[in-house]
Amino acid sequence: MSTAPRSARLLAEAAGTAFLLATVVGSGIMAETLAGGNVAIALLGNTLATGAILVVLISAFGPISGAHFNPAVTLVFRLRGEIGNGEALAYVLVQIVSGIVGVWVAHLMFDQALAQISMNARTGPGQWLSEAVATFGLIATILFGIRARANVAMMVGLYITAAYWFTASTSFANPAVTIARSLTDSFSGIAPVDAPGFILAQVVGAVAALVFFRMVREDS
Amino acid sequence: MSTAPRSARLLAEAAGTAFLLATVVGSGIMAETLAGGNVAIALLGNTLATGAILVVLISAFGPISGAHFNPAVTLVFRLRGEIGNGEALAYVLVQIVSGIVGVWVAHLMFDQALAQISMNARTGPGQWLSEAVATFGLIATILFGIRARANVAMMVGLYITAAYWFTASTSFANPAVTIARSLTDSFSGIAPVDAPGFILAQVVGAVAALVFFRMVREDS
Amino acid sequence: MSTAPRSARLLAEAAGTAFLLATVVGSGIMAETLAGGNVAIALLGNTLATGAILVVLISAFGPISGAHFNPAVTLVFRLRGEIGNGEALAYVLVQIVSGIVGVWVAHLMFDQALAQISMNARTGPGQWLSEAVATFGLIATILFGIRARANVAMMVGLYITAAYWFTASTSFANPAVTIARSLTDSFSGIAPVDAPGFILAQVVGAVAALVFFRMVREDS
Amino acid sequence: MSTAPRSARLLAEAAGTAFLLATVVGSGIMAETLAGGNVAIALLGNTLATGAILVVLISAFGPISGAHFNPAVTLVFRLRGEIGNGEALAYVLVQIVSGIVGVWVAHLMFDQALAQISMNARTGPGQWLSEAVATFGLIATILFGIRARANVAMMVGLYITAAYWFTASTSFANPAVTIARSLTDSFSGIAPVDAPGFILAQVVGAVAALVFFRMVREDS
Repeated sequence: MSTAPRSARLLAEAAGTAFLLATVVGSGIMAETLAGGNVAIALLGNTLATGAILVVLISAFGPISGAHFNPAVTLVFRLRGEIGNGEALAYVLVQIVSGIVGVWVAHLMFDQALAQISMNARTGPGQWLSEAVATFGLIATILFGIRARANVAMMVGLYITAAYWFTASTSFANPAVTIARSLTDSFSGIAPVDAPGFILAQVVGAVAALVFFRMVREDS
Repeated sequence: MSTAPRSARLLAEAAGTAFLLATVVGSGIMAETLAGGNVAIALLGNTLATGAILVVLISAFGPISGAHFNPAVTLVFRLRGEIGNGEALAYVLVQIVSGIVGVWVAHLMFDQALAQISMNARTGPGQWLSEAVATFGLIATILFGIRARANVAMMVGLYITAAYWFTASTSFANPAVTIARSLTDSFSGIAPVDAPGFILAQVVGAVAALVFFRMVREDS
Repeated sequence: MSTAPRSARLLAEAAGTAFLLATVVGSGIMAETLAGGNVAIALLGNTLATGAILVVLISAFGPISGAHFNPAVTLVFRLRGEIGNGEALAYVLVQIVSGIVGVWVAHLMFDQALAQISMNARTGPGQWLSEAVATFGLIATILFGIRARANVAMMVGLYITAAYWFTASTSFANPAVTIARSLTDSFSGIAPVDAPGFILAQVVGAVAALVFFRMVREDS
Repeated sequence: MSTAPRSARLLAEAAGTAFLLATVVGSGIMAETLAGGNVAIALLGNTLATGAILVVLISAFGPISGAHFNPAVTLVFRLRGEIGNGEALAYVLVQIVSGIVGVWVAHLMFDQALAQISMNARTGPGQWLSEAVATFGLIATILFGIRARANVAMMVGLYITAAYWFTASTSFANPAVTIARSLTDSFSGIAPVDAPGFILAQVVGAVAALVFFRMVREDS
């Protein structure tokens, strides 16, 4: 892991999470505005932008902070003992705050009101299962990718590219992203009342992935 | 090859094949639902998701199980003597069962009935030739990719990305995928009655690729 | 360069060029059939498939034959003295013949008549300039890519992805491809009467790229 | 950095910037012509081509000139003391002139009038913020990518792929590109009167990224 001091690590988490959210929300606004009502075309633009920026951000900030940008990832690394309690808490706080800043920057770029609340209903068993599966896959991608000494940045970008399409929820897979996306009334938003269900499913999926990884690893 | 014990290898094959099928079927449902009747747009979403997840799954599980996820691949490695009869049989059974599980997970995520039977007719000489060509290309990609010490995970993801478009059958190229896709009545399904023709063509293509590889290799 | 004997090299050129043309023509048929009249969507599918298969084919066959698949590339390597006259001639003949075979395989997969003649007019100064620019860029990509010890397979795939869109001719950039595509009356075809103009422009662009490379290289 | 003499470096900057602009403008014309009025589809084609050619050009010319192709990049490397005043000035002049040549080549390929002036209004606080954010991200991508010894060519291509969608301005992020695009009355153009606002925002974003990089780096 990185030997960078905490201030550098938190700056990296802040910049990465803010850019991630600005991309998710900004590309969602751009795509919906231009797509002429064809939601598949809008999702193509949203997917391309999100997958691409994830590769960039993880490549850039991975050596500094580990490039979590995601409380579910930080939780798993806490459970693995690779990060302490205080550091994990600081990571999560920074992720949540800078995720919201990223959403607001997107709103400002697109000349929208800064403060918004999403009206997008995203709830029900299919959505929750989708988030659990999406986060299971994301954490498994990271853990097995590290184990394989593969290009984890590329793998995460490609995983989310796929998961935007194969889950019914378009794969939030990230509690900080879920909170931030509750504050935009655009393509990528989620109504605040539906956020807790998503976050709970994400935590369940993340822990399940860690358990699965240990099952396979103990054997090998 | 991997030194992981059989239980770890089978877990990797199970997780990989289940995620592959969840992606193929889930992204097919998502794409068709959103594409407003434009099948090319739907196929773009289906292609992007499938190509991307293949890179991820092969990168993650390759060092553990070899990341076959495909009885045609397992057959070729059996013919090359790199895997024993018992192990090959176990691989194929796990691939078939977990492929079906992947389809069911996709159905649950999209709030669809678990058990379905496909009504998509996919038959005739053009379709069979397509599957033989698709599987020939897939096996050749793997064998020459290994020989070239190239990034086989990336190559397979890109190969299937191309083959979804250049074959008339959208390139199943995998008997376990064919069986699993007979159990979804959605975009990516295939009527069960048409599955045997696809599987036979896939086996022919796979063996032909091995013969071709040996022809080139003996010379070089 | 490779130490593979000529028979292995020619088999690699044959398989690679045939798959390249099957992809260009097959994905063109698929894309046009599904795109509902939106040519940009059709070109997206055609581009994705062609760019992806180029990375695969060059990665797979590069270490054996150099993965030319293109008389313009063979010409440049002849001018650089890296291949002899007889070998170059054999390469070009194999490329032309197997390119045509690839087109025919595409026709058979899509249940079309084997023998076709294209009716697509592609002529005029803008088209010729496009082909010269496209081939200049392709050869420069290869020469500077080799010099930089970069991933040339990935670079060529990405270059053609771009060139399908930034040239007015959709970047044939390959005399064997041009001849083969004159034998399909589908999306990617070119009327035989227009082929010589394309090929001449391609040769001019290829030689210009070699001259440009030497200008830069002599300095550095 | 490169030990190539100045003439080779300037040739590389010229070829790279010309191809970049030919791609941005040419693919914009192609995409708009074919997209049947759906601007999201047009932007997909424009994005795919631009992101792909950036990876190619930076991979090819990076070892020779550093592959700036962008006065904002040259400014940052000047501020870091990695390039002298005279060399930086020469780079910027070559970038501007060859960018314009690239636009003209695109016009000629598409049988359009050589000399054009854009009528596309792109102005206002949202657009300026977009350009500052876009250039901040581009420079941060380059600086942190070099620091991480990552594949900077791939990172820049993917960054611009994302930024075309997540900024309201489609991310020019380059003063030479801005000037050149004022000279095309097509999809990718910008009215000359709006260019200075873009360029000012780009310089602000570039310098801010350098400051941010130093903040993180001093800590680590």
